[in-house]
Amino acid sequence: MVQAHTRMLDRSTPQAVKAAVMVIGGAEDKIHGREILHAFFQRSGGAGARIAIIPSASREPAVIGSKYRSIFESMGATSVEILDVRDRDQGTNASYLEYAQTCTGVFMTGGDQLRLCGLLADTRLMNSILDRVHRFDITLAGTSAGAAVMGHHMIAGGGSGESPNRSLVDMATGFGVLPHTIVDQHFHNRNRMARLLSAVSLHPDRLGIGIDEDTCACFEDDGVIEVLGKGTVTIVDAADMTYTNQSLVGATDPVSLHSLRLNVLSYGDRYSIPLRRVVSTGPVR
Amino acid sequence: MVQAHTRMLDRSTPQAVKAAVMVIGGAEDKIHGREILHAFFQRSGGAGARIAIIPSASREPAVIGSKYRSIFESMGATSVEILDVRDRDQGTNASYLEYAQTCTGVFMTGGDQLRLCGLLADTRLMNSILDRVHRFDITLAGTSAGAAVMGHHMIAGGGSGESPNRSLVDMATGFGVLPHTIVDQHFHNRNRMARLLSAVSLHPDRLGIGIDEDTCACFEDDGVIEVLGKGTVTIVDAADMTYTNQSLVGATDPVSLHSLRLNVLSYGDRYSIPLRRVVSTGPVR
Repeated sequence: MVQAHTRMLDRSTPQAVKAAVMVIGGAEDKIHGREILHAFFQRSGGAGARIAIIPSASREPAVIGSKYRSIFESMGATSVEILDVRDRDQGTNASYLEYAQTCTGVFMTGGDQLRLCGLLADTRLMNSILDRVHRFDITLAGTSAGAAVMGHHMIAGGGSGESPNRSLVDMATGFGVLPHTIVDQHFHNRNRMARLLSAVSLHPDRLGIGIDEDTCACFEDDGVIEVLGKGTVTIVDAADMTYTNQSLVGATDPVSLHSLRLNVLSYGDRYSIPLRRVVSTGPVR
Repeated sequence: MVQAHTRMLDRSTPQAVKAAVMVIGGAEDKIHGREILHAFFQRSGGAGARIAIIPSASREPAVIGSKYRSIFESMGATSVEILDVRDRDQGTNASYLEYAQTCTGVFMTGGDQLRLCGLLADTRLMNSILDRVHRFDITLAGTSAGAAVMGHHMIAGGGSGESPNRSLVDMATGFGVLPHTIVDQHFHNRNRMARLLSAVSLHPDRLGIGIDEDTCACFEDDGVIEVLGKGTVTIVDAADMTYTNQSLVGATDPVSLHSLRLNVLSYGDRYSIPLRRVVSTGPVR
């Protein structure tokens, strides 16, 4: 566990890092309550937080990086650094590597998930961050494209407005932080159920997780997800699937998926990935 | 069973009515293979079919009625009549009532489901048709708005692009042909999963059935659905639902739905409503 640094501020008390993987569906509140971003700040150590921002998914990394820096600084983080990797060589940048070893939280912004993976996958920088995430040393958050990369199988793009079919989704390889999952984001907002079902038909051993905007699936070290924010987290579970014709039909033919389990979770609901069921329901607010 | 009339045509043989309720997701092929419309024609007795068209959902009933008349006449139906009900008084029209007693198939067109129900619900004409449908005397088909009216609880309208929530769907009362179901149409084409989930949260004792365009859920008298056409039929089953917060939250708050069963069916798949599971899978074509 990283030792949280003390910091003298009237309204904030230093606290320990309570590591989590926070998967955010994009368009999280950055202005008013900032519930999700504040939860990330708290789980990175609160006033003791040393936050690394990875803006590499974006084509405007300086703009988006400094926006998040302002937010976390205004919350009272001890330090905030932008790991502004724009080519793969920077994945060995000594000061970035050093900060990655001492930070308490890493935040990956939105943009293009293929760009993010292309710049960072298998770099020394990303590998050292992922090692610490796997040990639950630090909190990792990703929003939108930064959420999409969490699985091993990654949704790189796709369409909507069609019956589920293989060609409706483009798959690639993500960072594998949550290897048992396939994450989709802006989920109900952009009507992505059909593409998530298409992805699950290709990889029925993975749990499909669709996260709405301004909503976070917060993964604890015991494999329990808790929902934060304003929307829903949708979980498509093919563990008991009795049949799919996915491998038998053409790429644009509709797919059958028989006997899936579907969970729609909202604020405070907690779902266990090992148990594949809801373990407690959220408060009514 | 209605006696099929004989008719002299080289390429068609008279056949018995094999009654069904055919729920079509809209935009069915009217030009090329016309698979679904031809199946309706066959199940209404083929060359012996006496077909009634109800175009009352549409604001252009004459146009849409004659379009379907041409199609069924070109297939070789013995007779085709348009029951062009434009006000509720016509629901006692003597010639319509007489035809409704002797027809072998009834086809309800698209348009507005509230208009269709407003004009026909509880009229003598519709009640006499529904009596014959309930006895599986005749085949009833409805497309788009004509499909929406099949349940008792009817989706009258709604939105998309949001987390499931009560205000995302407008409910009304349908004809109750398939009282255990809530039917939605143009389903994946218009991204209606969130609104169907919202409807199911309101009536979890009903089976949510979403039907894609150019796709038909064909209900047999044993409660088995068979899928025809190009897309999928999606079945949302809350029989084993462990929790919903629907009655506890505001109308625009996201709803939780824990442990639903989801089936995505494609061509030839057969699903038993009494058993609430797939009973056989379709051929690969």
